[in-house]
Amino acid sequence: MLSNVLLLALVSSSALAQSFRRTGACPKLGCVFPPDQTDFIAGQTFDIRIEAQAPVNGTEAYNGGKVDPEFSLHIGGEGAELVPITQFLGVPESTVSSYNFTYFEDYFAQDAGARTPVNVLAKSYRNVQLHNPGTYRVVFKYNNGMTTEAKWCVKPLAKVAKAKNMIFFVGDGMATSMISAARLLAHKTINGKYQTTLKLDEAPAYGSQMTHSLDSFITDSANSASALFTGKKMTVNGLNAYTDSTGRGFGNPAVESVFEMFRRITGGQVGIVSKAYIADATPAAVCAHTAQRAQYTSIIEQYLNGISGNQSWFPWGGVDLLFGGGAEDFLPGPGNGNVSQFERWQQFGYQLGLNNTQLQAFDNSQRALGLFTQGNISTWLDQNVYKNALDLAVKPRGGRGAYDQPGLKQMTTKAIDILSTRAKARGTGWTLMSEAALIDKEMHVQDVDRALGDLLELDDTVRATLEHLKEIGELDDTLVVITADHGHGFDVFGSADTKYLDAQTTDRAKRNAVGVYEQSGLSAYQVPAGVAPNNQTIFKGPNGPGFPVNWDPRYTIAHGWSAFPDKREDFQVNNQSERVPAIRANASAGFFFNPADNQRGFSMSGNIGGSNGQGVHSLVDVPIYAFGPGHELFRGVMGNVDLAFRVAEALGLGRDSNVTAPYKK
Amino acid sequence: MLSNVLLLALVSSSALAQSFRRTGACPKLGCVFPPDQTDFIAGQTFDIRIEAQAPVNGTEAYNGGKVDPEFSLHIGGEGAELVPITQFLGVPESTVSSYNFTYFEDYFAQDAGARTPVNVLAKSYRNVQLHNPGTYRVVFKYNNGMTTEAKWCVKPLAKVAKAKNMIFFVGDGMATSMISAARLLAHKTINGKYQTTLKLDEAPAYGSQMTHSLDSFITDSANSASALFTGKKMTVNGLNAYTDSTGRGFGNPAVESVFEMFRRITGGQVGIVSKAYIADATPAAVCAHTAQRAQYTSIIEQYLNGISGNQSWFPWGGVDLLFGGGAEDFLPGPGNGNVSQFERWQQFGYQLGLNNTQLQAFDNSQRALGLFTQGNISTWLDQNVYKNALDLAVKPRGGRGAYDQPGLKQMTTKAIDILSTRAKARGTGWTLMSEAALIDKEMHVQDVDRALGDLLELDDTVRATLEHLKEIGELDDTLVVITADHGHGFDVFGSADTKYLDAQTTDRAKRNAVGVYEQSGLSAYQVPAGVAPNNQTIFKGPNGPGFPVNWDPRYTIAHGWSAFPDKREDFQVNNQSERVPAIRANASAGFFFNPADNQRGFSMSGNIGGSNGQGVHSLVDVPIYAFGPGHELFRGVMGNVDLAFRVAEALGLGRDSNVTAPYKK
Repeated sequence: MLSNVLLLALVSSSALAQSFRRTGACPKLGCVFPPDQTDFIAGQTFDIRIEAQAPVNGTEAYNGGKVDPEFSLHIGGEGAELVPITQFLGVPESTVSSYNFTYFEDYFAQDAGARTPVNVLAKSYRNVQLHNPGTYRVVFKYNNGMTTEAKWCVKPLAKVAKAKNMIFFVGDGMATSMISAARLLAHKTINGKYQTTLKLDEAPAYGSQMTHSLDSFITDSANSASALFTGKKMTVNGLNAYTDSTGRGFGNPAVESVFEMFRRITGGQVGIVSKAYIADATPAAVCAHTAQRAQYTSIIEQYLNGISGNQSWFPWGGVDLLFGGGAEDFLPGPGNGNVSQFERWQQFGYQLGLNNTQLQAFDNSQRALGLFTQGNISTWLDQNVYKNALDLAVKPRGGRGAYDQPGLKQMTTKAIDILSTRAKARGTGWTLMSEAALIDKEMHVQDVDRALGDLLELDDTVRATLEHLKEIGELDDTLVVITADHGHGFDVFGSADTKYLDAQTTDRAKRNAVGVYEQSGLSAYQVPAGVAPNNQTIFKGPNGPGFPVNWDPRYTIAHGWSAFPDKREDFQVNNQSERVPAIRANASAGFFFNPADNQRGFSMSGNIGGSNGQGVHSLVDVPIYAFGPGHELFRGVMGNVDLAFRVAEALGLGRDSNVTAPYKK
Repeated sequence: MLSNVLLLALVSSSALAQSFRRTGACPKLGCVFPPDQTDFIAGQTFDIRIEAQAPVNGTEAYNGGKVDPEFSLHIGGEGAELVPITQFLGVPESTVSSYNFTYFEDYFAQDAGARTPVNVLAKSYRNVQLHNPGTYRVVFKYNNGMTTEAKWCVKPLAKVAKAKNMIFFVGDGMATSMISAARLLAHKTINGKYQTTLKLDEAPAYGSQMTHSLDSFITDSANSASALFTGKKMTVNGLNAYTDSTGRGFGNPAVESVFEMFRRITGGQVGIVSKAYIADATPAAVCAHTAQRAQYTSIIEQYLNGISGNQSWFPWGGVDLLFGGGAEDFLPGPGNGNVSQFERWQQFGYQLGLNNTQLQAFDNSQRALGLFTQGNISTWLDQNVYKNALDLAVKPRGGRGAYDQPGLKQMTTKAIDILSTRAKARGTGWTLMSEAALIDKEMHVQDVDRALGDLLELDDTVRATLEHLKEIGELDDTLVVITADHGHGFDVFGSADTKYLDAQTTDRAKRNAVGVYEQSGLSAYQVPAGVAPNNQTIFKGPNGPGFPVNWDPRYTIAHGWSAFPDKREDFQVNNQSERVPAIRANASAGFFFNPADNQRGFSMSGNIGGSNGQGVHSLVDVPIYAFGPGHELFRGVMGNVDLAFRVAEALGLGRDSNVTAPYKK
């Protein structure tokens, strides 16, 4: 143990770097991006940024807030001499930028409005690569003798591809507990033995990944998708770019994704599919770069023209296809200079489709933009079971009644057809990112039925994808990876007799409707209404195998979240529209339970701050499944960043020289 | 979909078989044990039981409650003629037993006190085996034309052992979310990258298993351990025996465990270690048989003499060692005929040890009984960090102050020494079941620090076990499997600034101390008090690597459970003793939050019935890790029953004839 003297000496930096941070990945007053402990794919493009900081006050106050103007960055391979970064990488010296920012040291400071100002001098070096595998020592000297070091590691080359094509499915927010629950709803057991299982359960490779971010142990979908696709830990809201201290969304130090590397090195096809609005974080992480995931206009521009501004690395050429929701970001408006992105994309040669009929009619040889709603695509449950919700779903160009929407399966199989057709015509391979985005969005609002419906839709999509790949002769060439970006603390802990719950008049009596252990009984979702769950018949449901026969049985799953706002629970499907558990009287008020929500239920007081009207992401490691060539790389326990390296290995992306291949539109 | 006519016809059996069941695995009025969909290891011993039932009233009322006295059981191999069970198995005809029982059809019936009486005629056939791999059709005819069928499957033979020895670790209640949390507390990240990880994370085989029981989707530890060790789904509270309708703990149809098969076939050594009272469900599932896990006296007798009463299958010979808590069940008392099991076991030749010093002094060549407390062994946290709790820990023969207790590591490594020494002397192999029992018990009372401490102790024990196996030259011969029997719905969703929480005066303001997403920051458990979590030094904690440096930082994990009683949360370690979240005024009152618990915290109203003073088990699939010969069998997604078959395959237990080998005491 440390001596008390040493402990006292360390106390001076107490209270820092927890709920608020001066700058992520910047433990001392000097920051190096990419930071210490970063691994690289050989030849992966990235930007370097250094910052020297001087807080004016607070526990880290330095030199009256004056940054020493002298600072330097050196680098050397293992055991080799350190040389200036410009010399080592053959890049020009960069200009210094000077600015300041403020932050709170803790909640007490926030309550008191006591901000800590920090002055900064910074430099960036753009568009660099390390091609030689091994470790590198990076040394940043600043503030008159302070030093921040970074150890970088370039992973071994893997130029030989195991797979020609790759599909990366992201079940956003999909924790193991939800997979267990979805299986219970959609598959029948007889005497405890599942008669069928999820397609995911059949994967020849199964693993698990740790999701925490660079500077916080809870991640969001931007930085976790960036980790999966670039192999770099980042900060919440960061998309393939480190969150520097500028507070700006542009010019942040960026990192190339495996999709970008695949395009650059092979000239291959890249497609993006999501059930979210298409500028959302997970699809954006395929090829966009910003520290602020909400820069939707820029993200759409980057889908088309690659990394923006003066960071331009190489000719991106545009995605081959983009299918999802979020047409609102493509309409002319003040955010995008009143330009219609619909027309602009068409001018770039993209086919435009605004409903499933048009999607299915796309010419497989041409690039395509498919936007099927203004916001998110409707949930599987709303599209397939409680269809009255579609009356309110907004069509891409406006107006309610978006009845003709595709599901994840329709978008994904059509995407495969286009990518495969175009790749065959060009002699390339292809990659696709397909996101089951609404699992997460519905878990946030604690709408378990809609979340599990979209999880089952993902499983059905994986099944259909593997069948379709076989049909078109691409199964043996295509790696299929399925994972999540993070979880939600959630679990099923029994059954609820909803008839009994509804008949009780007090909160406390309603809780007695929950049956635990042996009183949980068997899943009632696999038998028609009125049939005992232990009936050993296999009933065919209206949505086919792999989905519940009955979404609204008398005995439902009793479930809960580890984090939740004030709310009510009745353990019954919200058959009119997506759930809204908590509301607030006005923008400055806190969230309290929504009187219109789950009126038959009992009240629960939340366990997160009143500014949260929804549940939040959690720490739990999330599962990995893989099929096809290279699947064996995805077994076992790993970090989320490791998946990018395994994808790069499967696709043969690690290169010892600057490889570029033309992309043919 | 079913026609409305069919649906109406089916409604007559509505409301049944959910929270209450007439008899598990008995969908019609006839029961066959083992039930439909049961798999067997070739040569595994089991009992058969049939029951014909006639409810007097209720939705399944039959024939005025009169069971037809004519009933028959036939069996045939795939495609073969059905023959009477006695003829097929060469067992004598059995006598008929006649009795009745009652049950409630649902909560309404329970509230009204309206019981459904059921009359029964039943028969059992004991001590049978199926040696030929393949499927069998079992047909039970009863009640004047009713039929219940069962399909049984005998798995292929696997007579060649991959491993000579086997250690099966059970982390009771250990869900993936807890492993993620434990890693966060015990291992340091630098810029999001773990500098060290759990030993479990290094396992060459990683998988996942579904835990649901025979007739309910939430399991308890008795029937899930039985599934793991016998390959048979059972009912809550059932230990290697089906829960028939007798309501009795003895004479239930039993199934042989892989530990019993190993002993019978090889004459090898078998040891049991647990941190629970040693008659608890998980250790009992090694070799005890009863539908009622609370039959502690019988369980202790079965450790010594095998399956009790007239079911006796073969000479068990007694465990080689039994280490744990629960000495209270060995003291003379009305429950065990006032016999001191201490003396009785000594008469059977067992060494007796009552503290860690005596444990370590055991002669490795002799059998041993080690009981170190009256109840459960103290938690790792109490034994190692907050040791004042030991003042109250009760010594085996009574009296407070059980300071000299072993941990899981001390018990397990000593068990290995004894088993290995004895096996070498006899030319056999050995098997050990070692249970980290308190993970579950502490999760129940929502004492996260104690639960995670015992989870980390399990990881440390696995590490020490592998090192010790290497030292004694048994690493290459020993399969080591680590899994859980079920989970608890739990997750970490942020950090809590406990200083800020404590300073607030209302429940709602205290919740604002929870930092989510980027405000979760980094784990503060890996730095000494007063040091910023993003400090990049690796600090050595008082308990060595793999444990927190500081259990009580200012910024703790904010966590929650999906199921919980009324309680208060302050996100701070209970540094005096194990937590008691809810209490009740008297035995007939419901549980409300305990005013003495977490007094600095905010109140939460629970979401389970008021008769629950603790959290409950959950549905989530749980992880599997394996090291050593045969580890590859434990990859991927499987059912809990599949583990028994894979253990049997690794140990070569599937046999085509009745093999018995003498066990040398």
